[in-house]
Formats: sequence, C-alpha cells, structure tokens
Amino acid sequence: MRLLSFVGRNGQSGYGAQLNDQRIANLSAILGHRYPDLKSLLASGLDDAKAAVAIAPVLSRHEVHLLAVIPNPEKIICVGLNYVTHRTETGRPVEEHPSIFTRFAASQIADGDPIIRPHVSTTLDYEGELAIVIGRPGRYIPAERAHEHVAGYACYNDATLRDWQRHSHQFTPGKNFVGTGAFGPALVTSDEVPNIEAQTLTTRLNGEVMQQAKISDMIFSIGEIIAYVSSFTPLEPGDVIATGTPGGVGAKRQPPVWMKPGDLVEVEITQVGILRNPIADEIA
Amino acid sequence: MRLLSFVGRNGQSGYGAQLNDQRIANLSAILGHRYPDLKSLLASGLDDAKAAVAIAPVLSRHEVHLLAVIPNPEKIICVGLNYVTHRTETGRPVEEHPSIFTRFAASQIADGDPIIRPHVSTTLDYEGELAIVIGRPGRYIPAERAHEHVAGYACYNDATLRDWQRHSHQFTPGKNFVGTGAFGPALVTSDEVPNIEAQTLTTRLNGEVMQQAKISDMIFSIGEIIAYVSSFTPLEPGDVIATGTPGGVGAKRQPPVWMKPGDLVEVEITQVGILRNPIADEIA
Repeated sequence: MRLLSFVGRNGQSGYGAQLNDQRIANLSAILGHRYPDLKSLLASGLDDAKAAVAIAPVLSRHEVHLLAVIPNPEKIICVGLNYVTHRTETGRPVEEHPSIFTRFAASQIADGDPIIRPHVSTTLDYEGELAIVIGRPGRYIPAERAHEHVAGYACYNDATLRDWQRHSHQFTPGKNFVGTGAFGPALVTSDEVPNIEAQTLTTRLNGEVMQQAKISDMIFSIGEIIAYVSSFTPLEPGDVIATGTPGGVGAKRQPPVWMKPGDLVEVEITQVGILRNPIADEIA
Repeated sequence: MRLLSFVGRNGQSGYGAQLNDQRIANLSAILGHRYPDLKSLLASGLDDAKAAVAIAPVLSRHEVHLLAVIPNPEKIICVGLNYVTHRTETGRPVEEHPSIFTRFAASQIADGDPIIRPHVSTTLDYEGELAIVIGRPGRYIPAERAHEHVAGYACYNDATLRDWQRHSHQFTPGKNFVGTGAFGPALVTSDEVPNIEAQTLTTRLNGEVMQQAKISDMIFSIGEIIAYVSSFTPLEPGDVIATGTPGGVGAKRQPPVWMKPGDLVEVEITQVGILRNPIADEIA
C-alpha cells in the first residue's frame, strides 16, 4: 500500500491509500473513528487498512491537499553524515556511532508544498534522504529484528539553512526552519519494497542530478540505526527516521549552489516515489 | 499560581494549582472539558484558571502522582554552554549564537520520580537548569517582548549520559535516555517571580552543593534565547526551553562524579521551587 495524509475540501484531515496517480481510497472515512490519524493506523498493524481499501469511498487526487506523510510524529530522528561521499565532502572524521540530530514536526511540509527560504538566510540547501517510518514500537531493538518494526518508506528532503546549521556545533537551528522538512508523497509499506538496500536515491535540482547513491551505500544500515536509536529512546508508531544524505550537497560545490525561489527540487527513490517541491520566499 | 500536572487515583491525568504543600486545587475537574491538558490551559491565558482556583475541588497531595510539569510539550529546546563557568570547564570556544539541542517528551519525568541509569552506561551526570514554559505563541519574537510569551518557570534536571553525548558531535543520544529529563515540581507563573534574573540556581547531590549560579550569569538571556529560537521555529503554548547549566558538572571533576542508585539529586531555584529525584538502575 501507498499511504498518505491529506486535508479534504471540508478542511478535515484524513488519510488514505493511493490507488493510482488520480485516485485515493479514503480510509479515514471508514476507520477514522478507531484510528484518528495515520500514525494510529500504523500502530494497529495494517490488516484493517487492507480490508478497508476495497470498500472505502474514492477521492480524486485534486480534491485533497496532501500533508507530510506523518504530519504529527512524536519523534523525527535525523542521521548525519551517513554516506561516505557526504562525510568526505564535509571533512568530518569517521565516527564509531551514528550522528543523531532532530527535527520538530512544525518544520514539515508535503509533496508539492513550497520549501520556504526564510528572510534571515539565503543558504538554503537540499538533502535527499530515505525516511523510515516505524510501525511496531520497541526499545533495545536488535539490528537483526529491526525490519519487524518498520512500517514503510518515503522520500525526505532534509532541507537546511547552512549558515544557521553552523551557528554552533549543534545542528538544530539550521535543520528546523518552518517549511523545510519535505516528506512524501506517500509511505510505501515495506512489503512492497522487499529489497530497500538495492534502491537508488537521486536528488535533482531543476532537472539536473545533484546527488545519487544506492541505499546500500549508507555507513550505518537501517538495522544498525534502529538498534542505536532504540537504545536511548523508545520507538513508537509514526516515528520518522531520516537516514542521511549522500555527497553532492549545494554547500560543497564550487561555487556553492543555493536553492532560490522558482527552483524545483526532486528526491526520487526507486520503488518508493518522487517528492517534488518548488522553492518560495517566506511571505513577510 | 503554581501549576502542575498529575495522574489521579482513578488513573486519569489532570492538572491543578498548588494551594500549599499538602493541597492541590483540581482545575481539570472544572476546566478539563475546555482545556484537556496544562499546555492547552496555558494557551487560554490564565484568567479561567485563576477564577477556577477558588471553586475547584481540593485534592490531597498524596492522592496524586505528579507528572512532568508539561508531560506532552510539542518542543523541548535545550541551550548548551550558557554559563561561562560551564563553557570554560568543557574547553569549548566562545560562540556568537546559542548552542541548541533538543529532548523528546519521552525522556521526561516528574519531581520525585527516579532518574534512570540505563544498563548501557554508568556516566550519569546532573545538569541543574531553569526551564521556561511558553504561554503565548509567536515567531520572530523580539528579545524585548519575549517576556510577554513566557507563562512561567520551573526547575529542570537535564540529566545526561556523558559517553553517549560524546558518541558524535551531536548531543542527542546522551540527552534523550528514558527517565532523564526531570521537570518540576510546578510551573510558577511569571507574575510570581518578577525578577527571575536575580534568582539563584543550586544543584545538590546527596546534600552537597555541586552547582550554583545566578540566573543573570547566563551568557544568552531569556529574551535573547526566545528571539533566537523563534527565528527558526514557531513557539507554541507548553513549549519548554531549558536554558543551560552552570559549571560544576560531575564529568569535569577530578575524579569525575557519576550519579548512582541510592543518590538524591536536587535542583533548587529561589522563588521557583526544589526538584528532587533519587537515582535508580533501569529495571531489566
């Protein structure tokens, strides 16, 4: 299934399963009284969702405004420097453990929404990433059982204000501007991508390939990341882990490439989807 | 008012105003249908709360189990290295901007709850801090108007697993273990502490003073912190800002002092309160 969150014409938020490019099964119309949002649907396992797809009312894609796949995750955990090509271009040392920072849900946007360049910075950069969404809760999850806790995958653009990222040794400010965490278009359940490691991640800016890597190029694997993170915090349904970006970021190009209003950035992961966002200036 | 969150004998969570050491006005019994939790009460302004104190049913302190003051904040923002004495002992350079990291709500505990030493680390350290709780939402808040957005203050123990904090250059793992973010006992509304800068913060371990500073010793003031943070993220009612810890942490003593089961740690801020937590080992 390809699950997504949306706001309908009535202004109510809901969730559904994508049937094709134009049609969405409105699962929340049937299951909303039991599972108020997509993360609670994930917590239920997906049997009810699968049964509901066939009988749910169908919405046309243009009747809804997409939301970030999980608009209200309890945690958004980001892995830094998780591809050799990106670690090398930043000049950072090899580390024994994953580098972990966080995003607030308030920074997220959906497929199609503009990534916002705030008036306080012009150093807006892309970071194409694979996002993992947790389905089954757990603490101290062994790496070899991590896949049992993954509901599915989506594309993430961990867009960053580089100057604010480097204000201090902690990345938080540059990673949490409103309108910078693009997450979508849909959560593809893990049964549909049996070999996620074999997939290719590509970031394009105005059609030009800027980043490209195999998911298997990650330094810390999905299993290792889940084992590490669940050592300090319990993972819950709907929690999001953005697994890091490959080399090729705009900041490390000569001259640097910053995203600006009118640009279009795309993050594509084979068998997962394409996340497209224009860039816009903040409205004063 | 001194506002707190609790779980009652019926297992239901609520909030109230402390009348004295032994008695709590159960505000949620009167206002719970309009404001389901303390952060939504803060969002309302506090006129309804003030009116309800006189007519609310009274609970005895031993009838409730306290929760973290705000058990479910949307954001917990932590400022690092915000006292000269602590920056100096860590050997970190002077920076032009505050160092910002985050906690997840899942790491929080209440006054009286044990701080948990996980089985994966023994380097458990205290960090006594002043927590600010946001009342009025805002973005791009000027420093000189920041006080209008502060609902009140509480004590925070930003307890840290030092080895996990230093696994990489990002602090997240060592700052997010379950049972390490002690927050309480109550939120003291800002009208009751007109001069917060003049107050004294003290951390005691088993009765011995380990940290002591004036709030006015902070490098970045409350106004400057709120202005900086609200530049990248909108502040919302119930958001928590832990404003940093003074010198004297256990990690920088010779030999280092680590908290261990049986210890009692206290964070006291004059006119705000005393937060007391024993230390306990994680139960396997």
